[in-house]
Amino acid sequence: MRYEELTIEGRNAVLEAFRSGKTIDKLFVLDGCQDGPVRTILREARKQDTIIQFVAKERLNQLSETGRHQGVIAHAAAYEYAEVEDILRKAQEKQEPPFLFILDGIEDPHNLGAIIRTANLAGAHGVIIPKRRAVGLTATVAKASAGALNYTPVAKVTNIGACIDQLKEKGIWFVCADMGGELMYRLDLKGPIGLVIGNEGEGVSRLVREKCDMIASIPMNGDIDSLNASVACGVLAYEIVRQRMA
Amino acid sequence: MRYEELTIEGRNAVLEAFRSGKTIDKLFVLDGCQDGPVRTILREARKQDTIIQFVAKERLNQLSETGRHQGVIAHAAAYEYAEVEDILRKAQEKQEPPFLFILDGIEDPHNLGAIIRTANLAGAHGVIIPKRRAVGLTATVAKASAGALNYTPVAKVTNIGACIDQLKEKGIWFVCADMGGELMYRLDLKGPIGLVIGNEGEGVSRLVREKCDMIASIPMNGDIDSLNASVACGVLAYEIVRQRMA
Repeated sequence: MRYEELTIEGRNAVLEAFRSGKTIDKLFVLDGCQDGPVRTILREARKQDTIIQFVAKERLNQLSETGRHQGVIAHAAAYEYAEVEDILRKAQEKQEPPFLFILDGIEDPHNLGAIIRTANLAGAHGVIIPKRRAVGLTATVAKASAGALNYTPVAKVTNIGACIDQLKEKGIWFVCADMGGELMYRLDLKGPIGLVIGNEGEGVSRLVREKCDMIASIPMNGDIDSLNASVACGVLAYEIVRQRMA
Repeated sequence: MRYEELTIEGRNAVLEAFRSGKTIDKLFVLDGCQDGPVRTILREARKQDTIIQFVAKERLNQLSETGRHQGVIAHAAAYEYAEVEDILRKAQEKQEPPFLFILDGIEDPHNLGAIIRTANLAGAHGVIIPKRRAVGLTATVAKASAGALNYTPVAKVTNIGACIDQLKEKGIWFVCADMGGELMYRLDLKGPIGLVIGNEGEGVSRLVREKCDMIASIPMNGDIDSLNASVACGVLAYEIVRQRMA
């Protein structure tokens, strides 16, 4: 799958994409553009709760691959998103306590791909990502996932904090990786669990961190601050695997 | 540091780089070019055991950033390489049993950077990479290492197998991650150890695998074949950390 196939440009093409039910990750619209067709597109986008960015002409020209964007460019997802319910159902079908990954703003597509790959092999039932300030299921992510996207459902939610609250009501505990936490080997990670991984640069956001039941620390025996996000996710995910096997 | 600073083009510049003792990862020479200055450069390159690639004009033009390569382009390392001895000395100074990473052909600079980052935080004393068929210490690797390259020595060897043999004589045991191995939790990974990580696509090469004392398997509870190389390295490295802490 080529990335070019996923950038949709021009008013008719974008409107058609919305109406056909295609999942649009992001809509870029020329700032100040308010004519009939663009309004129709914006209405469709809002109906589907798509992220809309109003941008200058230069930015649109930069994003455009055909040079004929007519003031609108849409980024479609390379893969279909699942619902959080689908992930919980998967756990139920396997008769296993739910094991989810919650990604609080992963921006690098190679990291997201590697994390979905880890989710698949660690036996997690799915991955939840936020709508804003994060990479979606682009072709680069699909490639970096080495096929895992075909098996592991990925759901996209508007608000990670609210999603955690809802899942807590279903008995899921949340653990995030952060400094100043309890050494991961000393935590009990055996039950229904959501593993929260923060943004590459800033880690887990304060609001999300406060919602976590446990803060796990990975032993740090070196000089720098933190592991790569997908490596940290792998190390913690496999501590969960180890405890579940014991 | 910008990558451009590390591509050296033109006969005088390349010869000067060799003579000043700069570490050149790779030398590209126009195929069939045999005049005096180019021969002098080739002689310097062979003296320093640099990888030389004879390429067509089109390839050189593609690699060139200035358009004035005069038939020679050198890729210099962004960082200085260490010697294997430096890594062993680091372990000795810390009075710890040696803990090394041996990378059998990592090609992706983001993976190499993430692995050096992991080596630093897992408390490994250094990383060994091969000269051929692998990425060197480029600026992309340095960036992906998040500063770890300033602390964790990386040595480059001609032959990974021979290097393992020499280190075995010093009492170091080698473990690689591969399918069909013993579950990693059941192995004894506490002593002087070299963790061998294979190439992204092909895993550990047969020759290197045969030299390993232990083959570790990471639990695979999913549908796909393998973890991302830097994630697999992180998971195994932290199993070593866990066992050493216990």
